[in-house]
Amino acid sequence: MEGNGGAGATRWRISRPSGRAAPLADAGSMSIRAVLDRVFSSVDASGPRPVLTLGSGDPTASACFMPPPEAEDAIVDALRSRKHNGYSPTVGVLPARRAIAEYLSRDLPYELSPNDIFLTAGCCQAIDVMISVLAQPGSNILLPKPGFPLYESRTMFSNLEAWHFNLIPDRGWEADLESVEALVDENTVAMIAETARKLEIIIIADEVYDHLAFGNKPFIPMGVFADIVPVITVGSISKRWLVPGWRLGWIAMCDLNGILKEAKVDKSIENYINITNDPATFIQGAVPQIIANTKEDYFNKILNLLRNSADLCYGKIKETRGITCPHKPEGSMFVMAKLDLSCLDGIQDDLDFCCRLAKEDTVIVLPGSALGMKNWIRITFAMDVPTLENALERIKSFCHRHAKLEA
Amino acid sequence: MEGNGGAGATRWRISRPSGRAAPLADAGSMSIRAVLDRVFSSVDASGPRPVLTLGSGDPTASACFMPPPEAEDAIVDALRSRKHNGYSPTVGVLPARRAIAEYLSRDLPYELSPNDIFLTAGCCQAIDVMISVLAQPGSNILLPKPGFPLYESRTMFSNLEAWHFNLIPDRGWEADLESVEALVDENTVAMIAETARKLEIIIIADEVYDHLAFGNKPFIPMGVFADIVPVITVGSISKRWLVPGWRLGWIAMCDLNGILKEAKVDKSIENYINITNDPATFIQGAVPQIIANTKEDYFNKILNLLRNSADLCYGKIKETRGITCPHKPEGSMFVMAKLDLSCLDGIQDDLDFCCRLAKEDTVIVLPGSALGMKNWIRITFAMDVPTLENALERIKSFCHRHAKLEA
Ligand SMILES: Cc1ncc(COP(=O)(O)O)c(C=O)c1O
Ligand SMILES: Cc1ncc(COP(=O)(O)O)c(C=O)c1O
Repeated sequence: MEGNGGAGATRWRISRPSGRAAPLADAGSMSIRAVLDRVFSSVDASGPRPVLTLGSGDPTASACFMPPPEAEDAIVDALRSRKHNGYSPTVGVLPARRAIAEYLSRDLPYELSPNDIFLTAGCCQAIDVMISVLAQPGSNILLPKPGFPLYESRTMFSNLEAWHFNLIPDRGWEADLESVEALVDENTVAMIAETARKLEIIIIADEVYDHLAFGNKPFIPMGVFADIVPVITVGSISKRWLVPGWRLGWIAMCDLNGILKEAKVDKSIENYINITNDPATFIQGAVPQIIANTKEDYFNKILNLLRNSADLCYGKIKETRGITCPHKPEGSMFVMAKLDLSCLDGIQDDLDFCCRLAKEDTVIVLPGSALGMKNWIRITFAMDVPTLENALERIKSFCHRHAKLEA
Repeated sequence: MEGNGGAGATRWRISRPSGRAAPLADAGSMSIRAVLDRVFSSVDASGPRPVLTLGSGDPTASACFMPPPEAEDAIVDALRSRKHNGYSPTVGVLPARRAIAEYLSRDLPYELSPNDIFLTAGCCQAIDVMISVLAQPGSNILLPKPGFPLYESRTMFSNLEAWHFNLIPDRGWEADLESVEALVDENTVAMIAETARKLEIIIIADEVYDHLAFGNKPFIPMGVFADIVPVITVGSISKRWLVPGWRLGWIAMCDLNGILKEAKVDKSIENYINITNDPATFIQGAVPQIIANTKEDYFNKILNLLRNSADLCYGKIKETRGITCPHKPEGSMFVMAKLDLSCLDGIQDDLDFCCRLAKEDTVIVLPGSALGMKNWIRITFAMDVPTLENALERIKSFCHRHAKLEA
């Protein structure tokens, strides 16, 4: 290697973290992964017990949460056909857009067309696209709390302001519309639509967990209310098909009254995705077969697993001093639980709780502050029952070990 | 559908193309695909002759330009293993980063480490990442002309200034360093390194066409000069393995003197890719096997095909009045040819040439202005010989039909 007599002596003009770079660093370091990395680094790798990870929304490590074999076959068929090795159109290949339009239309009182659909590299890219396209610096976006921190990162990156409204734990995480506007009602989804209309803002509906509803309330897509308010739905196959690593998602314009088209939102999306990435073409090519061939049985089996795990999780947290769960989960893969620090000796906050839990009991859970929920934790229950039981037992014993003696 | 009594009456606050949206629209509409779409729209779809596409760098439509079966098998194995369905680390899975580090190190006088490598969704995302990370608004970037327009789009999107230096057709497309600085020499690559060092700027080396050199000059990676100047190499498997649709690329920090690390460029990349997309995990998982199992024979076969096609193309253009090719191609999949409008009757410019060629002879070639080369065209020769001959014959007959009568 050349010494400092080489390149080292020159003062290279590389931008240092200032100006643009600062929000970039902040935006990136807010991600769930960055926070989990911090928690992970507390683990004593030389310890005897395996690390149990209840931190992220990725259940694919558990043998019971495998994708349907039909989906795998669809990928292999698309690849082996040798018809999907080339670049795809930036909006995505037509058969995949058509299949997704039909798939989403099953739950809507109208038909989406393939032209309403843009394929993206997972729901994450759909979020990236929509924030970049709709957002002008200086404008703002209303985000739920707790939410998905990529929205905050992307908002910061695009120099937008994020305004937050709360989701209320004691009302089953219903949106607190009082904090948005002066209206609350039972029928939250429709209310949100009415509120948005009143405020003259459009809705981005993140339905990445769409059909993973296993409680009493059915999943109702926001697009149902597209007659009231323009809705842009973002979603993916990541969660329902248990393939977050396949990176296949979509943007669906539910634009019954042509408002988005009139504002040329479709053109803006096209322009933006011209300079961003596409999902792998053969994965796009497999989409029609993935959707057509996956059986209802598969989805039901997964919902049953999730329901059981959620119940188990909720029950165990009830037995645990120092954390409470205000609402039994009815969907997705997570439960939010509140720390009662007054019962926990010497624990500073949620990050401290998670790092010490990682260190002492090699269990990873997500600090709520990653989601804007200080002194909450988020636990993923999407895993096989023995591992989940083991992890929850460790959390319980951690809490009880750190419980304050009753006064 | 609800009528205008519904959402239509409201004045929705959707940002119209102004402010941020304007550069976005411009940035997107500059893409090769956007320009090709314009050319395509001139084709009379009801005509009898099939459309021959020599516009983009995607040879996968030709049966002779198929990926190696080993690469396909690698993907199937990775998928069937069911170990790569989950999210990957944002920097990419370690075995793939290690395999790429070793692969690139074969041509370097030092060893890259897996930590120098970041996986990206194709070379395009590598470009996106590097421009976003290195660029501060108000600063500028030197770009070659002709080049790859994504650099211009991304530069515009990041509010940077692009300064262009010319590649000189008559010197085999060597960089015109006079237009950058007052130095020219035979040994261009090293000279560029010296020039960059003198100017105290770092180099982003786009080596997406790395080993597709079939002329007399061997491919020399810019990273060879990393002792003189910090080099960030971007590349992908898209071209050499003929799988542009697989979206697997990389950023390689050739940072022999630790200058990039000192400026925390690695951290900035990590922060940025935390909020962008990853390539599909099972494609990442296949990378070690793709690299290990693809035989030299395969690469040689492809190089021979390309060399033959390039020769054919060069020869045919020589026979064609109104276009000239200053330099026989020695690499990649394209040849640049110059229009002599003084010989062509009623043709306005390169875009007009391409649109009329599309309309009259259903052959698609890229207008040079998409690459900043007004009144040039870019012809892709990576296709099977009969199709290429057919297309070149049509171009010839088009030119001769439009040739001005000798005075
Ligand atoms: C609310 C929400 N939106 C989007 C995503 C990202 O989805 P994808 O993996 O399809 O990019 C997630 C992932 O956990 C999520 O929780
Ligand atoms: C110079 C150059 N860089 C980058 C790319 C994009 O490569 P990829 O398909 O790996 O994203 C291309 C594609 O044609 C190219 O010509």
